Amino acid sequence: MSKINRVLIVGGTHGNEITGIHLVKKFERHPHLIQRQSLKTFTLLANPQAYAIGKRYVDTDLNRSFSHQDIENPHLTSYEAQRAKEIYQTFGSGGSQPADFVIDLHTTTANMGLTIILDHKEPLYLQLATYLISLNPNIKVLYSRIESLDRPHLDSICEFGCTIEVGAIAQGVLDATLFQQTEKLIHAILDYIENYNQGTLPTSKNQLTIYQATHTIDYPRNDSGEIQAMIHPQLQFKDYQPLHPGEAIFITFEDEEIFYEGDNIVYPVFINEAAYYEKGMAMCITQKEEVF
Amino acid sequence: MSKINRVLIVGGTHGNEITGIHLVKKFERHPHLIQRQSLKTFTLLANPQAYAIGKRYVDTDLNRSFSHQDIENPHLTSYEAQRAKEIYQTFGSGGSQPADFVIDLHTTTANMGLTIILDHKEPLYLQLATYLISLNPNIKVLYSRIESLDRPHLDSICEFGCTIEVGAIAQGVLDATLFQQTEKLIHAILDYIENYNQGTLPTSKNQLTIYQATHTIDYPRNDSGEIQAMIHPQLQFKDYQPLHPGEAIFITFEDEEIFYEGDNIVYPVFINEAAYYEKGMAMCITQKEEVF
Repeated sequence: MSKINRVLIVGGTHGNEITGIHLVKKFERHPHLIQRQSLKTFTLLANPQAYAIGKRYVDTDLNRSFSHQDIENPHLTSYEAQRAKEIYQTFGSGGSQPADFVIDLHTTTANMGLTIILDHKEPLYLQLATYLISLNPNIKVLYSRIESLDRPHLDSICEFGCTIEVGAIAQGVLDATLFQQTEKLIHAILDYIENYNQGTLPTSKNQLTIYQATHTIDYPRNDSGEIQAMIHPQLQFKDYQPLHPGEAIFITFEDEEIFYEGDNIVYPVFINEAAYYEKGMAMCITQKEEVF
Repeated sequence: MSKINRVLIVGGTHGNEITGIHLVKKFERHPHLIQRQSLKTFTLLANPQAYAIGKRYVDTDLNRSFSHQDIENPHLTSYEAQRAKEIYQTFGSGGSQPADFVIDLHTTTANMGLTIILDHKEPLYLQLATYLISLNPNIKVLYSRIESLDRPHLDSICEFGCTIEVGAIAQGVLDATLFQQTEKLIHAILDYIENYNQGTLPTSKNQLTIYQATHTIDYPRNDSGEIQAMIHPQLQFKDYQPLHPGEAIFITFEDEEIFYEGDNIVYPVFINEAAYYEKGMAMCITQKEEVF
């Protein structure tokens, strides 16, 4: 396979997820931190206007603006639609400075610890995940693509990419421990790519645990669309932990419990993510899988 | 002392602190929950436009818009300035439906548990605090007024008032446990006022621990005003715990520790509150006092 020559590190795709923004600013002050012998690294603050106003986005979610259909649609003129086109035309496949690999830095109010979100199950990704977990066994590997959906995320602009999702962190807040762990994870990914390019990756045949998204569950809502229940205290902050059929997932404002009606044990993630109330998503259901 | 006949419960003074908003909506669906024999209870969603856009405020912080000077200034025409005037003209002293006591519901990203913020040390307040702590010893009593400052908070619109501050909760998120605990606290305050009106309060001579704000500490910043450090991991989520001179309070993005330079043990609160980055406040320093 060809080498990965150009890596793009992106912060602030969501303006109120400031861990990635301050990491990118740090890397811009100290560029040697992200340089490796066989590759060139670039940084990008993806949504500076959203950061300036302390919001996820100005007009629309930038991290849902990268489908090919939207990128090629001249009638989409919102701030984020324009920004997506600029980013794609610069760093996308066929752009002026095309990246081979993009690392997009996010945080979540869900208790997802250190999560790496991958899109494909090619060997490069599986080996990357195995390498990262060998350094830190607490890292979780999430495949969030639900097959029926188009893929509009920033990390899809070039051949290889991943999203780092770290939490629980409130929007607009820095958590020093998670900041430092995110930085370590970025260095580990760059080291992996360096070893990949140099052909010095250790052969690994370890089993790898991944979490494959299957569907999402919304909050119970009334006819006006207003939520009628909260995440149940027994489920709050329990991302990646087994949820059994019949266990409580919501509690209404009137103290009635609502139970999980699936047939199998599942592993919810993005539980109580602030930005997903408006997206109609209280949690994302995943299945735990072992791959080799 | 005269009776407290009219109590106002306020949610959504900040549009992204949604616990109070959903509590007010619950009380509006079930008004009997907040009725007591000797008093009339009202509810208010203070900043509906900020709630609609998922932000703390539209133009300016509503909970800093109630100084007498601002209320009487006809040149202030921002959304929140107008809203403050409307609220004051309705529920303030001399308003069309004047309240005697206001309970203003807030959340914080700081780990402040269940905090009641009081403004005066009159017997009514001290007895209220003692009563609440007798029901739940985890409740903290904070006097946040720093004498040199004017008092622009919503809970100052009538003779008696308090602010309930609950956390840690991310902005835009409901935490079911803290929702239920906040509701219990409101019921306890109403019960206290009912007993006060009926003259059936037990005489209490217990010692009461309060936290008196003395000053605030900002993040280290560069010449452009950008923060250069984060709350130190040893201090994160340690609200109300003793901070000793020489202990680390910040860590820079370059991993340098910054230490507390005061001369005495203090008790920081509002540590890493998201909304206070823009206010130049990383934490609020308090002294622990015993009152009788």
